[in-house]
Amino acid sequence: MNRETIKKLLESVRSGDLDVEEALEKLRSLPYDDLGFAKIDTHRTMRRGFPEVIFCEGKTVDQIQEIVRKMTENSEVILAMRAGEEVYQAVQKITDQAEYNAPARAILVGKKLAVKAESCILVISAGTADMPVSEEAAFTAEAMGNRVERLTDVGVAGVHRLLRNVKQIQSANVLIVVAGMEGALPGVVAGLVDKPVIAVPTSVGYGTNFGGVSALLTMLNSCAPGLGVVNIDNGFGAGYLASLINQLGEGKK
Amino acid sequence: MNRETIKKLLESVRSGDLDVEEALEKLRSLPYDDLGFAKIDTHRTMRRGFPEVIFCEGKTVDQIQEIVRKMTENSEVILAMRAGEEVYQAVQKITDQAEYNAPARAILVGKKLAVKAESCILVISAGTADMPVSEEAAFTAEAMGNRVERLTDVGVAGVHRLLRNVKQIQSANVLIVVAGMEGALPGVVAGLVDKPVIAVPTSVGYGTNFGGVSALLTMLNSCAPGLGVVNIDNGFGAGYLASLINQLGEGKK
Amino acid sequence: MNRETIKKLLESVRSGDLDVEEALEKLRSLPYDDLGFAKIDTHRTMRRGFPEVIFCEGKTVDQIQEIVRKMTENSEVILAMRAGEEVYQAVQKITDQAEYNAPARAILVGKKLAVKAESCILVISAGTADMPVSEEAAFTAEAMGNRVERLTDVGVAGVHRLLRNVKQIQSANVLIVVAGMEGALPGVVAGLVDKPVIAVPTSVGYGTNFGGVSALLTMLNSCAPGLGVVNIDNGFGAGYLASLINQLGEGKK
Amino acid sequence: MNRETIKKLLESVRSGDLDVEEALEKLRSLPYDDLGFAKIDTHRTMRRGFPEVIFCEGKTVDQIQEIVRKMTENSEVILAMRAGEEVYQAVQKITDQAEYNAPARAILVGKKLAVKAESCILVISAGTADMPVSEEAAFTAEAMGNRVERLTDVGVAGVHRLLRNVKQIQSANVLIVVAGMEGALPGVVAGLVDKPVIAVPTSVGYGTNFGGVSALLTMLNSCAPGLGVVNIDNGFGAGYLASLINQLGEGKK
Amino acid sequence: MNRETIKKLLESVRSGDLDVEEALEKLRSLPYDDLGFAKIDTHRTMRRGFPEVIFCEGKTVDQIQEIVRKMTENSEVILAMRAGEEVYQAVQKITDQAEYNAPARAILVGKKLAVKAESCILVISAGTADMPVSEEAAFTAEAMGNRVERLTDVGVAGVHRLLRNVKQIQSANVLIVVAGMEGALPGVVAGLVDKPVIAVPTSVGYGTNFGGVSALLTMLNSCAPGLGVVNIDNGFGAGYLASLINQLGEGKK
Amino acid sequence: MNRETIKKLLESVRSGDLDVEEALEKLRSLPYDDLGFAKIDTHRTMRRGFPEVIFCEGKTVDQIQEIVRKMTENSEVILAMRAGEEVYQAVQKITDQAEYNAPARAILVGKKLAVKAESCILVISAGTADMPVSEEAAFTAEAMGNRVERLTDVGVAGVHRLLRNVKQIQSANVLIVVAGMEGALPGVVAGLVDKPVIAVPTSVGYGTNFGGVSALLTMLNSCAPGLGVVNIDNGFGAGYLASLINQLGEGKK
Amino acid sequence: MNRETIKKLLESVRSGDLDVEEALEKLRSLPYDDLGFAKIDTHRTMRRGFPEVIFCEGKTVDQIQEIVRKMTENSEVILAMRAGEEVYQAVQKITDQAEYNAPARAILVGKKLAVKAESCILVISAGTADMPVSEEAAFTAEAMGNRVERLTDVGVAGVHRLLRNVKQIQSANVLIVVAGMEGALPGVVAGLVDKPVIAVPTSVGYGTNFGGVSALLTMLNSCAPGLGVVNIDNGFGAGYLASLINQLGEGKK
Amino acid sequence: MNRETIKKLLESVRSGDLDVEEALEKLRSLPYDDLGFAKIDTHRTMRRGFPEVIFCEGKTVDQIQEIVRKMTENSEVILAMRAGEEVYQAVQKITDQAEYNAPARAILVGKKLAVKAESCILVISAGTADMPVSEEAAFTAEAMGNRVERLTDVGVAGVHRLLRNVKQIQSANVLIVVAGMEGALPGVVAGLVDKPVIAVPTSVGYGTNFGGVSALLTMLNSCAPGLGVVNIDNGFGAGYLASLINQLGEGKK
Repeated sequence: MNRETIKKLLESVRSGDLDVEEALEKLRSLPYDDLGFAKIDTHRTMRRGFPEVIFCEGKTVDQIQEIVRKMTENSEVILAMRAGEEVYQAVQKITDQAEYNAPARAILVGKKLAVKAESCILVISAGTADMPVSEEAAFTAEAMGNRVERLTDVGVAGVHRLLRNVKQIQSANVLIVVAGMEGALPGVVAGLVDKPVIAVPTSVGYGTNFGGVSALLTMLNSCAPGLGVVNIDNGFGAGYLASLINQLGEGKK
Repeated sequence: MNRETIKKLLESVRSGDLDVEEALEKLRSLPYDDLGFAKIDTHRTMRRGFPEVIFCEGKTVDQIQEIVRKMTENSEVILAMRAGEEVYQAVQKITDQAEYNAPARAILVGKKLAVKAESCILVISAGTADMPVSEEAAFTAEAMGNRVERLTDVGVAGVHRLLRNVKQIQSANVLIVVAGMEGALPGVVAGLVDKPVIAVPTSVGYGTNFGGVSALLTMLNSCAPGLGVVNIDNGFGAGYLASLINQLGEGKK
Repeated sequence: MNRETIKKLLESVRSGDLDVEEALEKLRSLPYDDLGFAKIDTHRTMRRGFPEVIFCEGKTVDQIQEIVRKMTENSEVILAMRAGEEVYQAVQKITDQAEYNAPARAILVGKKLAVKAESCILVISAGTADMPVSEEAAFTAEAMGNRVERLTDVGVAGVHRLLRNVKQIQSANVLIVVAGMEGALPGVVAGLVDKPVIAVPTSVGYGTNFGGVSALLTMLNSCAPGLGVVNIDNGFGAGYLASLINQLGEGKK
Repeated sequence: MNRETIKKLLESVRSGDLDVEEALEKLRSLPYDDLGFAKIDTHRTMRRGFPEVIFCEGKTVDQIQEIVRKMTENSEVILAMRAGEEVYQAVQKITDQAEYNAPARAILVGKKLAVKAESCILVISAGTADMPVSEEAAFTAEAMGNRVERLTDVGVAGVHRLLRNVKQIQSANVLIVVAGMEGALPGVVAGLVDKPVIAVPTSVGYGTNFGGVSALLTMLNSCAPGLGVVNIDNGFGAGYLASLINQLGEGKK
Repeated sequence: MNRETIKKLLESVRSGDLDVEEALEKLRSLPYDDLGFAKIDTHRTMRRGFPEVIFCEGKTVDQIQEIVRKMTENSEVILAMRAGEEVYQAVQKITDQAEYNAPARAILVGKKLAVKAESCILVISAGTADMPVSEEAAFTAEAMGNRVERLTDVGVAGVHRLLRNVKQIQSANVLIVVAGMEGALPGVVAGLVDKPVIAVPTSVGYGTNFGGVSALLTMLNSCAPGLGVVNIDNGFGAGYLASLINQLGEGKK
Repeated sequence: MNRETIKKLLESVRSGDLDVEEALEKLRSLPYDDLGFAKIDTHRTMRRGFPEVIFCEGKTVDQIQEIVRKMTENSEVILAMRAGEEVYQAVQKITDQAEYNAPARAILVGKKLAVKAESCILVISAGTADMPVSEEAAFTAEAMGNRVERLTDVGVAGVHRLLRNVKQIQSANVLIVVAGMEGALPGVVAGLVDKPVIAVPTSVGYGTNFGGVSALLTMLNSCAPGLGVVNIDNGFGAGYLASLINQLGEGKK
Repeated sequence: MNRETIKKLLESVRSGDLDVEEALEKLRSLPYDDLGFAKIDTHRTMRRGFPEVIFCEGKTVDQIQEIVRKMTENSEVILAMRAGEEVYQAVQKITDQAEYNAPARAILVGKKLAVKAESCILVISAGTADMPVSEEAAFTAEAMGNRVERLTDVGVAGVHRLLRNVKQIQSANVLIVVAGMEGALPGVVAGLVDKPVIAVPTSVGYGTNFGGVSALLTMLNSCAPGLGVVNIDNGFGAGYLASLINQLGEGKK
Repeated sequence: MNRETIKKLLESVRSGDLDVEEALEKLRSLPYDDLGFAKIDTHRTMRRGFPEVIFCEGKTVDQIQEIVRKMTENSEVILAMRAGEEVYQAVQKITDQAEYNAPARAILVGKKLAVKAESCILVISAGTADMPVSEEAAFTAEAMGNRVERLTDVGVAGVHRLLRNVKQIQSANVLIVVAGMEGALPGVVAGLVDKPVIAVPTSVGYGTNFGGVSALLTMLNSCAPGLGVVNIDNGFGAGYLASLINQLGEGKK
């Protein structure tokens, strides 16, 4: 029951065609979301312009192809994460607008959003093995209309490598810091800046790394305040959150 | 905005005092749950006659006293779980309708609901140390209007003790089986009946019991199908779920 | 020693061919289950009409083929769970009555039981990746003679998707709610209904999902009472338990 | 060696009082942070006006008293977290500017910073038992110069309670969502807004809650993107991070 | 229904007072354990002469007192484990036959069983802090009628201390080896003997000892075969199992 | 320095060729195990007649072939565990005395030891999927010279299957009970007998089985005393320990 | 059998009072450690001059008093770790040579060993709450005869605090780095030096710190090589290991 | 900005070409490590002559080839760890100076460093399956210029095998002890020597070994002081740390 349906109902009440008790009964039986147009509008506003996202892991190529086909009817931009080469090939068969970011294992259908904020998101990664995750974060943030810079291979084992770049680090608006192994980098970075830091543990490591748990615990227990942590290997979530933060206030301008 | 408010709104539309577009706007801007009377009604139906429940753990005696005072204005029956002796004394100061079940550490304010179903819930416990949890389950189910039987100290270490009671076990409609230590009892019981079994692990044990985790895992991994598991020591949840199951269909009669 | 054997023994006692002490001795030495016909009868009654179930995981195709061959001699309906395509092909070689449900990875040999209850089991799943588990649950419940409805892709990240279906949700007799990732859906559903909810965590997710442990813990710790939880990915167990609950009281009619 | 020292050194070089090689040597032998005035300045800027924070847990009352005494010499505002009543009494003996927030177990010495941003931080908590943590978050954010609103007792077990407040939720600039037990609230809130959500798991619960681990995992595995998670019970960290986010861009104005 | 009941039934059949079909029906409806006298006899034999055991942890002093009072009516020997001083005092009030072993926290009511086997159980412990557990094991084995020797403070950190006693070690029939910390002692001992070794991890230690988990894992992963492991701190279980092993074959002599 | 060396030394002392102090010095500097012939003898005695055992997992086929070749020079019987088909083929190339037990994945080179004890070891397994482990246990015990009986597929989900075999169970001298999933079988068996029970958890199961941890914890926490537990899937260790127990006292006859 | 016994034996051989074969037999039957004087000497050498150490945790004051009394007969220096104030008072009653280090909770009876090495051990700690552990380490190393320096409160949250002290850090011979919370300090320090670093995780922290596990994992997973890790809160072990390292080669001079 | 740049700056100040304020500004804006020449020099000294190390796991063959190519321009010796056969073949294509250690899965490009210390590192391993890790340790230490001895297959299950080699063990300067399964060997070795022991847990084992966690915990909880532990399977880290220790003091000679 949409706005029009309710309008008609009210008009029937006014015209006397519908009795108040009956109208009341009809309104009572409305399912939530039909009455919920305010929320739905809000919801649309909230998401408008943001890429729709498909998480490919655990879906067959056929399923993904089908989902992309359906979504291209309504969305100008689609992001497919954790997508292998074969998924990209399948997507190409149904649209010629797909672009593939191999290290991030991400497909963009359509165009990245126009940049909305002057300020910059800096994606720092501790080692080259963390690149799939850091690229996923960077690519997500770019697709959502942000300026993104990258700083790689600055792990804490050689803290001077990090300090050499302190200027770039201090000039960013939001920082995403990606690290596996002992995962100490985000805490050290947070101690150098007065900006929010999003910490992303990766599953890079072996033995007591426990698939990223070691890095995760390090980040959650950081002495330096100003850190928010996402799931292990969740570059997408970090990029998404960084974009929300970076674009704060852009709407009201 | 309750039923009356909407009725008035509709009457204003009918009388012409309110224009259709204005009415539409007012309806649009209603907060969800104000429009949501269908749900609220449903919600009330759903909960009607069921005891309101206060979980006392982590609340001060003052806070609990305050909550009970407020609730007695609207509720005929209140259940306060995990309530120590001192909570009971505090509750007695504001109402003379409170009854205390010491082993279950539960307070009932008002009267248990009238029994709604002929069929019986059987609460089985493995050892005497499990009694606080099994009593919590039994008391909850009784308060919600069920016939409850108890069968205690029939752990699997002496399986003949269990089999001696197989008739009582097979005549129950719903079974709650409470066990600590290795927690094998619910699985053995489930193999003897064709009725739903609610398994409640308790934190009774030591060493690798890990505060009930051993019993929990045993129940989740049971070879015998027909088991649903609740949180460690969650006698209340088991009694509540058993009551929902036992009273199925009572409404439609 | 079956009923006939015991009858003959009693007749020999009556005719004087067997002396009381000898008869006593014979009864004494009977193995449990031979004397245990009451239980065995009960047991049969308990299981009668229910599909016999083979759990294929960890068995070779040859073993499964052999088990099915043996069972077809006595059972009218057999359910083989966690069965791959190759198992289905092997089963087809020994019976032409096998039906395969690919998403549920389940084989039914014979016919689904006739529907025994008017009331309906609703299987809700949070995401499309949870389908193997939700289908396993639904298929099990259908095979055991229940009406089953399905509601898919209504995860809590967009709670309005769930609320849109509140009517269907509230009209079910028993609910199975399947969710991976953070596993919050069963708790939210339990807050909307006054019917038992069976929560099934799935291993869908990554990182700190720990193969479904995250979802499992969420369900066990749910604030909303009325939830019973089964093992991770245990769609079969959920379907079986839901069937037991849904058919409560059908026997006595 | 501060700016003045280096300036004098340079002036001595210019005047010829100091030879270039000698000056070079002096600069070489400077400890890092003495040369590091850029960083120190930055550092000061970064921290300027922010309350200095003492984490009282694991310190004796004497130690805390001593630290506060020292800090009052330089800082206009000091925040002492996880401070019991007895710590507050000790602090009062050395300053009459201390204010105690009992539920947050926090002491503020001096005045809260002037509000720097128009936008608001909303602190949502699932249950009343989560209050110590949510108050810690709110109090921290207020002390750091933010407008803070509170929304309490809106756990997902009754999702309508949450939706009733959807307007307030959607109008916040940054959201802190505090929850124990199953910890599902932050994920549901993140699905309703397009603003950053800081999720704070609490140790409220029992059994498989494992001291907050259940809630933590739920938050890390949330399907809804836009969440950053902090350590269990870390209200301070959440308030600090929210403040950094909320005041982004305020500096450049 | 005991032997007499069945005898009477059979006599009624013989005398013609009871018809065969009726008798059959009566036998059918017998509860399991009434027919199950063979098993019950066996069961009695199995347990005869063995001390009845009360696990005091988690029971109130009143409850224990009551249980002991009841048991003294039938049992000549009672063992109460994990019993504090106050339990002993309470037990003394109802019997003057109680003996207290303080380090083992065990009470013996009545007399230790006569020694049944020539061969000896050797209880080895790694450190003095393991004494409560090793004494619990030794006292249990003694109460059950075994010769017990003790060898203490021979941890692997000084392997020569162990080797000095190799003769005593190799002359035992069954060995109980108790160790906390890293728990390596049982594996080293098992490599020195050709007798069964019962390994008992204790919760002695700190940090990554995790309440005895470290020692438990060491014992389960021992390279030396011939080890059986019991729960952390389960001296009673070790003593009981050692007694069963040590008395093997004694019955048949 | 062997017996001969020491004899010569002593003879030199006697003949006066070697001075007492010098002899003392030479003895002092002897490495441990050269003086340690008593122990070495004991050690040989201890192991004499027992099969030497190769654990193949983690060794290459070449390495195993080499080890077998070397061992055949000294040992009359060799046991190779966790050996795949390809290992057996490689072993066959160097000896024609090898026998392969496929379900147990074990190779016997030479002959099983002659049976040393009249009494019997009973290997009970809960399900057919546990067979690789139960066969490993049975085969090990047989190779070491024991009578072994097997009882399979008697899991606790249908406790009557177990009770049907109570006679066979109660007549065994030592019991090995193998179970995966919830692992409750050993505890139930231990409650039926007065003989030592060796409990073997298997990794059979899924989800919260955690690779056998669930079954392991169940066994360690069993209420029934008389259980010793070995590592997950460690059939060999169980068979070895059972043999040690079963042959106790055989030596002294 | 000590040196004298063997000497006499040899003299009897020489004098002809003892026949060679008899002597051989006597030597054969000697228990290990009686023959093992070489080892015992070595052992003494190994430990000579090193403080004997009592771990007080889990021992009663009486027991500790007794142990100290016995040890003072033979040892010139005794170290008692994890000793509370009351232990110190008890020790004072039996010796007037006891010194108490309150923060380290350590008692030294006798004198610290003379300093054996020029080189210095540097004990670095991340926060003031880590002091009990860092003092335990420093005190142990001092008691064993080492020069010890301390550097405190240089956690990675403000990496400039650490770098300010880079000279002191780089001039140490061995470094002990103590940290709780996220435990990142040892890895950062290891990246700054070419000397061995002993990492000590502490249990300082809350929530996901899990009693020091977070810090432990960080240290084990450090990207910087050159780290050896000890148990959580094991300051003693760190001081002991550092002393062994620092005094390497001192013996041969 | 290196020494020369700063010298020129100072000379410009002296000559008056650069004004003091401007010079101050330039110094301020210097990135850290450009001013940080003291540290950089130190750093170079620290690492000079040490092999540069590539950790190959998680890098593609192409990436490794590229890194080696770049490094050969500056380094005389490169170590590539965790390198498979195919990596070695790829490295051979760009340099003819590569040597492959297959069991250690390590590539050395260039020559091992000249031996710097007389003293010896002894690498002890418990079983042959631990060889990949023990070889990694030994090879690393050799490449860094140390004498290395190996002692293999001396696990604690037969402690006499270990004691037979006590002389070799006691003559080493530093010991690396590698063990899987229960990991007890390092603790036993540490009890025999007065030298530092580096303990390396391996992932060799099954079941409750949990991929090396069992061995790790054993080592961390060792009763014998003098142990430092590295990550599971981290042979490289052990070899590196042993080399740092073994070469202590060599620089100052």
